[in-house]
This record gives sequence, structure tokens and C-alpha cells, in this order.
Amino acid sequence: MELKMDIAALESFVAEQFPQVAGDFTVDALDESQVTVRLNVQDRHLRPGGTVSGPSMFALADLGMYFAVLSRLGPVALAVTANCSIDFMRKPAAGVDMLCVTRLLKLGRVLAVGDALLYSEGLAPPVARASLTYAIPPK
Amino acid sequence: MELKMDIAALESFVAEQFPQVAGDFTVDALDESQVTVRLNVQDRHLRPGGTVSGPSMFALADLGMYFAVLSRLGPVALAVTANCSIDFMRKPAAGVDMLCVTRLLKLGRVLAVGDALLYSEGLAPPVARASLTYAIPPK
Amino acid sequence: MELKMDIAALESFVAEQFPQVAGDFTVDALDESQVTVRLNVQDRHLRPGGTVSGPSMFALADLGMYFAVLSRLGPVALAVTANCSIDFMRKPAAGVDMLCVTRLLKLGRVLAVGDALLYSEGLAPPVARASLTYAIPPK
Amino acid sequence: MELKMDIAALESFVAEQFPQVAGDFTVDALDESQVTVRLNVQDRHLRPGGTVSGPSMFALADLGMYFAVLSRLGPVALAVTANCSIDFMRKPAAGVDMLCVTRLLKLGRVLAVGDALLYSEGLAPPVARASLTYAIPPK
Repeated sequence: MELKMDIAALESFVAEQFPQVAGDFTVDALDESQVTVRLNVQDRHLRPGGTVSGPSMFALADLGMYFAVLSRLGPVALAVTANCSIDFMRKPAAGVDMLCVTRLLKLGRVLAVGDALLYSEGLAPPVARASLTYAIPPK
Repeated sequence: MELKMDIAALESFVAEQFPQVAGDFTVDALDESQVTVRLNVQDRHLRPGGTVSGPSMFALADLGMYFAVLSRLGPVALAVTANCSIDFMRKPAAGVDMLCVTRLLKLGRVLAVGDALLYSEGLAPPVARASLTYAIPPK
Repeated sequence: MELKMDIAALESFVAEQFPQVAGDFTVDALDESQVTVRLNVQDRHLRPGGTVSGPSMFALADLGMYFAVLSRLGPVALAVTANCSIDFMRKPAAGVDMLCVTRLLKLGRVLAVGDALLYSEGLAPPVARASLTYAIPPK
Repeated sequence: MELKMDIAALESFVAEQFPQVAGDFTVDALDESQVTVRLNVQDRHLRPGGTVSGPSMFALADLGMYFAVLSRLGPVALAVTANCSIDFMRKPAAGVDMLCVTRLLKLGRVLAVGDALLYSEGLAPPVARASLTYAIPPK
């Protein structure tokens, strides 16, 4: 599927829409098959012991899917999360960022579906997996 | 199932374990069938437009299930989230707290399963629903 | 939400649409808050040991949601399953039917969301829980 | 992860355990990263119009994960499905088999997690995606 936004366009669009969290996330890579989003881990994302919290991983997976949808629909989109199913499989590593690799599996008229794997940077086994459905409002 | 912790015990246990978020949540009600947890909504939980963000609702559902499990297992537990499937059904109301009503459906030897409905305070239709599985470590 | 079909109308509509499975399922109860569907357990629904199979429970949960949606939309509907998240919590009892109690949580313009508890008849603890999203085609 | 069973061993193990359904499924491919299972589509798997039913796709995804777990644990396993979240994204094609490609993301002491893509044979876009958690009984 053709991309309608590049990394710079995605980041500036989200910086306008969600100024509270925009600094937390960076797009590391984007192509027609997948998008990689980085959580720039800070103290507010951590649980005691220094591992990234579940809600922070959810936020990362959610934003990864938002970027995947936006990059195909363009900046006019007001897509909203309808469902997320997330499995937490391993404890995140302490002291490193997290990366989320999202692939868009369907971009329909009213629903978009994708899935994601979340990693602690530098470690091969995924920390979490998620699948997400976004509802796309009528034009 | 008999309760091993009351509201005061749950809140002080979480205040010790998760000092970063303890102020955000209050237990409104607890009995043998369900627990009601309040998200004391603050600016950091909001999206532009004043509605509660998805990750904040995820955090509320996750903590509701944690309280449901803890209240039966007692404060020694180190249960961790294994899965959450959450459906966002309606836009939260602006300017009000959110309430999460969680019921525990299974408390097994290694897995606990529950589900939750999330409401904007004062409004009848649920904003979101979630089901959660916690893994319970061996003693 | 007002009901547009009663039990007899639901059963005859499904008998026409899905003749292969219609005999497997009966509507035990229907009101404005929930619908109860029975799986008339037969050999083809069983695993060795005599317990109901996972796919048969999935089919029961799926049909329960279909009835919940149909009963509000009327027989013109062509709603299709978009997502199902199902947790298998306990082993079903051998030699009894299964009952599925479904409540509709949202009936929107394009999406309907509901959840369900599945029981072995006569036993209190639920065997499984499921949440389902149906996509509703435009008129 | 090393494989403890090959295709022939998997198929004969399932033929013994689940004689009712064994003829419906074939293992097309198996390596250390994924397993491909075929649903040999027959009339009983179809909905009116000739497309594969949701419960048949659920059964395929469930068996794919079972094979993925078994192939690593060996034939002594009694793993059971704990959770499945499945998204139906496109209508299956009529008149062709379905293929399910499953990868195992985690094989822990008590839980295994994997995900799957389901295809109508010969068509590139996936018909459905699923994630599954299996509970592994103690030895």
C-alpha cells in the first residue's frame, strides 16, 4: 500500500495532536510493510525495579498502529482504537528503550487491523505482542 | 471467595509497590463478587478535547484486576499481567472521573481471569470493556 | 434497547440461514438485557473424554452474539464477526449441554460489542468467557 | 528451538488423540520458526455461499498452535488452550483450502504464546489473524 506520509510528517502530526506524549516516541523506520516506533524510556514509564510498565507498552503498541494507519490514510485521519489484545510474554530489560514493529494486515473502509511485536532494544525475544483494530470514521 | 485484604490494605500495599501511580487510583468498593476502582482523572490522563486516553483506561483496567487478585491472595502475591483484551466502545465524558468494575471469574493455581466494565462517572453506558489474565507465580 | 425479534423468529431465521448447524442450538431465554443460547451437545461437539471442544464453544459464543445483534436489528441484518477473544477457564462437564449468556454492550452504526459467559448446565462456575465484535454492513 | 517431533509424528499423534477431526487437517510444512497447517475444506466447514465458517477457522488456528507447541515439547504434552483472540478480516475464497501459518513466540514453563495468519490457498491477503495462549500442565 502506498505511503502518504513519511517519518517527519508522522512525527510532526502527532506532536501537534498529542503534545503530552509526543516526546516519548520516535519513528525509527517506515516502509510499505511495517513501521518501527521507539519508546524513549523515561522514569515515568517505569515500574519499581526499572522495567517498563504495562500501560507504557500498551501506549507504544497503540501509537505504532496509529502510525501504520496514518501513513496510509494521510493526515486527515481521525481513526480511533476499537480493540487491543496484548500478551505480555517476558519481563522488559532495564535501562534500554523499547521498540515496536507494527504491520498493517487490513485497511478496510471502516476497520483497520494490525499486529505488533515489542522488544527491549538489543534483545531478540519479543517482550510483548499485540493486535489492534482501529475504527475509521466516514469521510 | 473469601477476602484476605480490605480496601485500606489494598491501597496501602499499592502505594508502597507503585508510588508513581498510587495517587491516581482509589478503591471505591470491594466485596466478594467485585471491586470498583476510581481513576482520579488529572491532566496527564487526558487527550486533547479533555477525554481520558486509552493507555489510562488500560492502566485502570489492569489495576482493577490486580486488586481483584490481591484481595483474594493477600499481600504476598507477585501476580503479573499475561493478557489484556480491551474494547473501546464510547468516548469518555470530559471532566469526570472513570470507574472500573472488575469481577474475578477464575482464580486458579497459575492463572487468574477476570473481566471489567469501565464507566465515565454518572453515565450508564460503559465506555470500555476489558478481560484480563494474570499469571500467578509459584510459592 | 427494544427487541425486534422474539425467540421463535430468531430460531427460524437461523434455521434458514445456517441449516447445517441450526439443530445444534436453541434459544432458552431472551429479554432486553441478555440472550441465553443452548448448545444441544452431540457427539460431534466432543473431545475424547466427553468434554465439549473449543471450536464448539467458540461457535456457541459466536451464535449468542449473533442472536443478540439480530434481536435488536431485525432479520435484515448481515452482521459478521470481526473479532472474538475467548478465555477457556475450566474443563466443561461431561454429559450435559452448554449454555451461553450474552449481553450486548454496544450497538453502534458500524460495530456491535458484547460479552458472554459459557456454562456447563447445572454448574455455577463459568467454563469460558468471550467478548465479540460484529461489523454491521451499511444499509 | 529444537524440534522434538516431525510432520509424520505430529499427524499420527493427533490422529490418535482427536480421531473426529484428524482427517480435516494436514501439516504442510514445519521448521524451527513456524508450522503450516492445512484445512482440507469439506462441506461441514462451510457457510451458505461456500465460504469457510468462523468456527472452522478457529479450529484451524487452535490446531496450528497445538502443533507448534507439541513439536517442541514432544508427544507427552497435554497443553490446553487458555485464550484465543481472533480477527476475521476478509471473506474466505470459495472452493479452496485454508492454510494457517503459526509461529511460537514464547514457550515458558506454564504458558506458551503464538500467533497465526490464515489464508485462502493461493490468495496473498490474510483472511484472519489469531493469537493464542496455551497452558502447559506441570510434569
